[in-house]
This record gives sequence, structure tokens and C-alpha cells, in this order.
Amino acid sequence: MTEPAARSPEQSRSSVVRLMVPTDANFTGNVFGGALLEEIDRVAYVVASRHAKTNCVTASFDRVDFIAPVHVGEVVEFDAMLTYVGTSSMEIWVRTRAEDLAGGGPNLVAEAYVTMVAVDPGGTPVPVPPLTLTTAEERARFEAGRVRMQSRRASRAGSGR
Amino acid sequence: MTEPAARSPEQSRSSVVRLMVPTDANFTGNVFGGALLEEIDRVAYVVASRHAKTNCVTASFDRVDFIAPVHVGEVVEFDAMLTYVGTSSMEIWVRTRAEDLAGGGPNLVAEAYVTMVAVDPGGTPVPVPPLTLTTAEERARFEAGRVRMQSRRASRAGSGR
Amino acid sequence: MTEPAARSPEQSRSSVVRLMVPTDANFTGNVFGGALLEEIDRVAYVVASRHAKTNCVTASFDRVDFIAPVHVGEVVEFDAMLTYVGTSSMEIWVRTRAEDLAGGGPNLVAEAYVTMVAVDPGGTPVPVPPLTLTTAEERARFEAGRVRMQSRRASRAGSGR
Amino acid sequence: MTEPAARSPEQSRSSVVRLMVPTDANFTGNVFGGALLEEIDRVAYVVASRHAKTNCVTASFDRVDFIAPVHVGEVVEFDAMLTYVGTSSMEIWVRTRAEDLAGGGPNLVAEAYVTMVAVDPGGTPVPVPPLTLTTAEERARFEAGRVRMQSRRASRAGSGR
Amino acid sequence: MTEPAARSPEQSRSSVVRLMVPTDANFTGNVFGGALLEEIDRVAYVVASRHAKTNCVTASFDRVDFIAPVHVGEVVEFDAMLTYVGTSSMEIWVRTRAEDLAGGGPNLVAEAYVTMVAVDPGGTPVPVPPLTLTTAEERARFEAGRVRMQSRRASRAGSGR
Amino acid sequence: MTEPAARSPEQSRSSVVRLMVPTDANFTGNVFGGALLEEIDRVAYVVASRHAKTNCVTASFDRVDFIAPVHVGEVVEFDAMLTYVGTSSMEIWVRTRAEDLAGGGPNLVAEAYVTMVAVDPGGTPVPVPPLTLTTAEERARFEAGRVRMQSRRASRAGSGR
Repeated sequence: MTEPAARSPEQSRSSVVRLMVPTDANFTGNVFGGALLEEIDRVAYVVASRHAKTNCVTASFDRVDFIAPVHVGEVVEFDAMLTYVGTSSMEIWVRTRAEDLAGGGPNLVAEAYVTMVAVDPGGTPVPVPPLTLTTAEERARFEAGRVRMQSRRASRAGSGR
Repeated sequence: MTEPAARSPEQSRSSVVRLMVPTDANFTGNVFGGALLEEIDRVAYVVASRHAKTNCVTASFDRVDFIAPVHVGEVVEFDAMLTYVGTSSMEIWVRTRAEDLAGGGPNLVAEAYVTMVAVDPGGTPVPVPPLTLTTAEERARFEAGRVRMQSRRASRAGSGR
Repeated sequence: MTEPAARSPEQSRSSVVRLMVPTDANFTGNVFGGALLEEIDRVAYVVASRHAKTNCVTASFDRVDFIAPVHVGEVVEFDAMLTYVGTSSMEIWVRTRAEDLAGGGPNLVAEAYVTMVAVDPGGTPVPVPPLTLTTAEERARFEAGRVRMQSRRASRAGSGR
Repeated sequence: MTEPAARSPEQSRSSVVRLMVPTDANFTGNVFGGALLEEIDRVAYVVASRHAKTNCVTASFDRVDFIAPVHVGEVVEFDAMLTYVGTSSMEIWVRTRAEDLAGGGPNLVAEAYVTMVAVDPGGTPVPVPPLTLTTAEERARFEAGRVRMQSRRASRAGSGR
Repeated sequence: MTEPAARSPEQSRSSVVRLMVPTDANFTGNVFGGALLEEIDRVAYVVASRHAKTNCVTASFDRVDFIAPVHVGEVVEFDAMLTYVGTSSMEIWVRTRAEDLAGGGPNLVAEAYVTMVAVDPGGTPVPVPPLTLTTAEERARFEAGRVRMQSRRASRAGSGR
Repeated sequence: MTEPAARSPEQSRSSVVRLMVPTDANFTGNVFGGALLEEIDRVAYVVASRHAKTNCVTASFDRVDFIAPVHVGEVVEFDAMLTYVGTSSMEIWVRTRAEDLAGGGPNLVAEAYVTMVAVDPGGTPVPVPPLTLTTAEERARFEAGRVRMQSRRASRAGSGR
């Protein structure tokens, strides 16, 4: 197997806009946090797959704070981008914003860092292409991602798993 | 009611990427054309709502040719943009492309022109903001949209409805 | 492979009634045009499969005008019937009507002409049984379908695809 | 409130054909009995609503035997018709048959008798139109339905509810 | 194949709590009986699978009376337990109760007896482990289940199937 | 408004078992992490609502590690219990375990701590009943929950939100 060619964060960047419908919400019209997390996972999966060109699985979600409620009838935009890439694991940042049709700018609902791992059909991790970093911002994000990945590993080790 | 401020096609442009899952497909893994049309309608609705800042209804779909099949496991991107705006009606162009995880560029699956109408809570058409046209391409698209809208009206009149 | 036995339009005719529920609609109770198109595609698929006795794919939807809105709580009836059959392609006419529980006759919502193609597991078109035509009405529908099919081919050729 | 006009079984008769897709089935491709019962309830609801012209609720399902399995890729037809009408309650017979695309006639999967009750917005039973009986078969079905309804009431009384 | 080891009703007992959302209900907020039956079938399937350690299919539902309505926003609990086990068939009792968030104890909505049969990949019935009965209550339930199973067989025989 | 009566963790404890079906999974049969998070949110919502007797919203999810993959055909059990209660906020611990029908004990898939807030119809936090703590284990969990809640507040303050 040859070394996979490096790819930039822009090449796998993905976004989804969705109108929130009654299916996503409880009886008071509040969209469930879990419905948003499901969509965040789906778009992160697309980013990881586009970069790795193979099947991926979700390894972890960092803490997610829902800082504003979302209601039925609002348009929610999920913007997802690779921030860090290890050997087989990828960190994807997903920003969730909601806009009300009455106008005004979009409001931040939540930010999430999702870790995905590229796997072969038997579920064994496989290497992913390196991430091409062009701008200073991309390099800063990568470095911050590397630190978060170490901290995730340390806390998992600390919990004895 | 004051004249609504003009808005550009870029201000309402919207896109959706979706991984095709077994729910979207028949037993041979072929994604249903109707599942794609449903998503095309949803993203066109978001574009129309973002421009009109009010509720909208689908008035018509122009003919849609499915020029390539889509399979479970592919990533489909729906890109939607206003091309023409009348008094209450809006024409939205939606391009649907699929990419296979094994690589290669995205393939065109279908192009659709969806007509949406802005309506008040009783269903009566209401005026929408004009469309700001900046580039020659936007002007050409608008003019082509105007011609298509006239042709739709003529054929509806001809069918006696 | 022997010549498949001819079958009549009545042998594959299919219909679906559905109560419109909140899942089908936006927050104002208006059923999405795309939700209706999805159901139209499903019932057209059943008609095509019943005639061809093999897997089918949607090749195109002719223009669809939504001439009346549909609301949650209404009963919608989708009536689908073969009008024309070529070598591998089939034209299915689907009439969509809605009735309000408060009474009154059903109202026409939309008419659609869907083209389906019978395919083998590799996606290659396969021949379908001829259509037995018994009544003058069936013959007139078949002839009109043949003309529409030629016009679809001409416009696809004209668009350079 | 005036006496509602009588209506025949044919005026509310309803049917649904559905292609079974992976969403309806477990991992071996067997369609869940519960997925069929859900559809049976939906079509019975449509029949009851069409007759009563008001909202209805499901009061009971008689025993249902699944006498043949259903698989993903089969077309299932649900045929529903009023058999008996009391003051506020209606008995609907739903026949479920499956056909395999490889050919052969449809096979009976299950027969169900569903009891629906017409209710006002507060949930109180309201009277429904009488059932016009024209043929000897309709009269025989009605009489059998009347006997079943008495037997349901007797067994509910016997269970102390 | 060795004799499968006996298992107790407690080892396969399963329960599900679900918040009723608009997807489960009609436009007046009444949860469809069919939506409850679908969930009852799913939890019965889990109980049967946990006992049999193989795939199962639904053979029958005994009569189900819906003795109280369920509304969107209520929490419904489905409690399912094996009552009787034959050679390949299993009877599962499912109790459905609803609680309103305003307080008060849960109300009984319906009780169901579902018969499941363990099958091999070709659909042929396979033997299931015997049921260990420890308490007098378990023995009484088993005996009542045995009587019901005989009565089901008799009525199927009587109907000529 | 009177002081709400204290309630124990056992009074709101809730669990859900679900058979994983193709709808929950990608094309390789791997259940999406997001599908599990959605279910975790739903059962946490039920626990919070049962304790607070009012509507609730998800405030945050602590980090979730998926320590084992889940496949279509497995039975997943979600067990949810209150660990800590503040003025309006509640911490719910949800344990997710999967069992394979071939046998063996259930395997831990993920543990999650979900923070829910009780709100009035306008979205303003409202007080919830205190938590009755009976056992030493409940007291230890409560104390650990109190520490986690302080740490969440500190990190949110640190991020300038």
C-alpha cells in the first residue's frame, strides 16, 4: 500500500442546512439536543470519509454545550472541517448555527469536536492521508487539535479503559 | 408595508451534503429518485425562505432527468441558488452531484428548477424582495429564468388550468 | 430469454391513500411538495415493477405543477397507471388528489408523468413486456405517451447529454 | 345536529400498495409484524375518517395471525373496507397480501378487524352515519360484524374493565 | 445440536420508555394505535431473541383493546416478559402504560399477548430453550399461556387454514 | 408556588432496549455514533421530565467515548438515572450496553453525563424538586455530580460565554 496523498482541510469541508420540522422536536416545538448531535455526527462522518476515502467510525464526542435553543421552523446550518489528523484518527470541528426567518444574523447553537477513526471492513484502524496545512490559522488549529488528542488519550488512560 | 430590501443570490445560496443510507434506497441499494426530489425540495425551500423571510410553498418542479444512478454509501451534494425572482414567485436551481468514496470527481446526477411562492398564513401570495444582480452570469441566469417562467405560465394557460 | 408476455395497464395499476401527518409538513401545516413527489415516485416504482417483474430505476419526472395546497389531516390519494411502454422504458401517469375530512369531492393536487427503466442487477436496461391495449382510451394514451417520449429524447439530445 | 346521511362501504373503501424497504425489516430482511400492523391501522383510520367525516381513534384490534412471512423487496397491498357500523364505532376489515416480483399471484399475509370510534376534539364519542347495505354479501358481513362487536363487549365486561 | 439450557422469564424481560412525539400522532395529537402496536412488536421481538438466541418472527397478536388514549408529550412504558414457551413458539406479554407529566400514577393503555416463533435463516422453526419457572405466579402464567396457545391452534384449525 | 416534594433517583430511573435496524447504520452495518447519542438524549429527557414534572431542554453532553462498535442486529440497552440535581439543572448518567444474540454478557459501549434544565413555556429555568439520597452510593454519585457541574461552569466561564 502506497502512502496516501496529503489533502487540505478545504478538500473535505462539508456543510448542511436543514429546516427544523416537527419530527425533530418535542411537543413544545423545542428541537431535541440529540437530533442536533445526530446531524453533527452525520456531517462529521462525511468530512472524515471524504478525507480518508474509506469507511470511518465515531470514536468520541468532546463536551458539547447547547448555548441557545432551536425551534421548529428555524434553519440550522452545520459547518464541518478537519482540524487535526493522526495516523488513523481525525478530529472534525462542527459549528452549528440557527437562523430565524424573521431576520437577524445566525446565532451560534453549539460547537463540537468529533473524533473519527478510519477502519477496514473488519474494523481495524487504517492509515489516513496527512493534512496539508497552508495558512497560519490551519496550523494553529492543527496544533490545538494535537493537544486535545493527547488530553483525550490521557483521560482515557486515567479512567482505566 | 415598506418595499423589502433587495438581496443577492449569494445571500440565500444553500447546500446540503448527505451520506446515502439504506433508508433512502430499495433492496438493490439504488437510491430512489423520489428520495432525491424530496431533498431537492427541502433545500429549495430553505433558499426561498432565506430570501423571502416568510413561509413559502412549492408551485412547480420543471422536468428532472436522472442522468446517473446513486447508490447507498455515496455522498450526495445538493447546491441550491436563486436564479429568478418575480413578484411573489422565485425560481431556484438545484444541482445534485454524487461522489463515490473510492475517489474521482463528483458526477452530475440531476439539475432541477423549482418554483416557490411566498405566502402569508392564509396562503395568499405576498411580495418578495427583488434580486440584486451583480455579475454578467447572474444577469444571464435571471433572463433565462424570466423566459422559463413565461413558458410555464403559457403552458399552464394552454392546459386550461 | 423468451419474449415476455404482454400485460394490460389494469394488471399493474396501483393506488395509495395516505393521511398527511406532521412528519410530511412544515411548521405551518403545509405538506411539502417534495414529500408528495417522493410518494409519487414510490407508487410509480410499484407500477413499473409489477409490469416489468424486475428492478427499475427512475429516469425522469416531467414537469409537475402543484395546483392546490395540501394540509396535515387531509387524505391524499395517489393513482398510478402505465400509459406507454418502449423497449426498456415505461411511462407512468400518477394523479394526486386530496380530500378534506369536512366533506366535498377530492381536489386535484398534481399530475405527474414518471419515466422508469427496467434494469438488471448491473444497471443495464432490460426489455419489458409489451402493453396490451384494449380500449380506445388506452390507445390514445399510449400514442400521446409515445410523442412525449420522443420529445424527452429530443430535448435531452438538444442539451448535449 | 341533523342525522348524518347514510354512506355505502364502497364510498370509504381504501387501499395502499407499498414496496417493502429495509426500514421495515430486521437484519435478515424479514418485515416486522409490527410494521404491517402500523400500516393496517393507518389505512383503517382513513376508511373510518372517510365514513365518519370526523376524527377517529383505534379502540381495538382483533387477533391477527401472520400466515406468511413478508420480505424486503416485496409489494404489499392493504385493502380496507367497512363491515359494520354502530352508533359511534366502526368495524374495518383489512386484508394484507404480498406479491413477489418474480411473479405468481398475491399471497394472503393477514386479515385484521379493527374497531375505530369517531370522537369530538375532547375525545367523546360522536354518532357516525349509518351504513347503506346494497348486496347480500354486504348484509352478511354486517351481521357477522354485529356478532363480533357483541362478543368484544362481552369479553371486555368479563375481564372487569 | 445439544439441548439449549433453560432460561428464566427475568433473563429476557425487557422494557422501553418513550416520549410520544408528533411523528407518532395524528393532527389532533392522538397517538395512533398502530404506532403503539409497532413498538409492542419490537419489544416482544427483543424478549424472544434474548431467550431464543436466534432470529424470530411474529406469528400472531391476540386481541388488543386500547382502553385509554395516548397523547403527544406523554411518556409511554412498554414492559415485556415471556409467559409461555413451546417447542419453537414463545408467548410474550406486553403491558403498555402512559404517564402524563403533570403527575399521577401511570395508566394502563393496553395489554398484548404476542406469539413469536424462532426460525433458522431459511424460515424453518427451530427449538428454543425451556422456560425455568421459579415462582407460583410464573407457573400460573405459564399454564394460562399454554391454554391460550391451544385455543389459538384450535381457532386457526377451525378457520380452515 | 410551593416547594416541590423531593423525589428519589429510583422514581425517575428509565431504560430503553432497542434492536438495531438498518435505519440506524451505514452501509457496512455499523451503527452511527450519532444514532446512539440521539437515543441517549431521549432517555435522559424522559428521566428529567419524570423528576421535574415539566418541560426540559438539553444544556450539555459531557465527553462521550465510544469504546466498542455496535452493529445492526444487536440489542442495545440504555439505562438512565439522575445523579445530581441543582436549582433548575439535572445531571443524568446514561449507560449504553450492547448484546449480541449469539450470547455472552452485554458489553459497555459508552457512558454519558447529560445536563438537562427544567424550563417554563417561555424557556426560563424553573426550580426542580430536590433529590432524596438514601444510600451511600447515591450520596457519592451526587457529590461527584456537584463537582462536575462546577467544572462545567468554570470551563464555560473560561471560554468567555
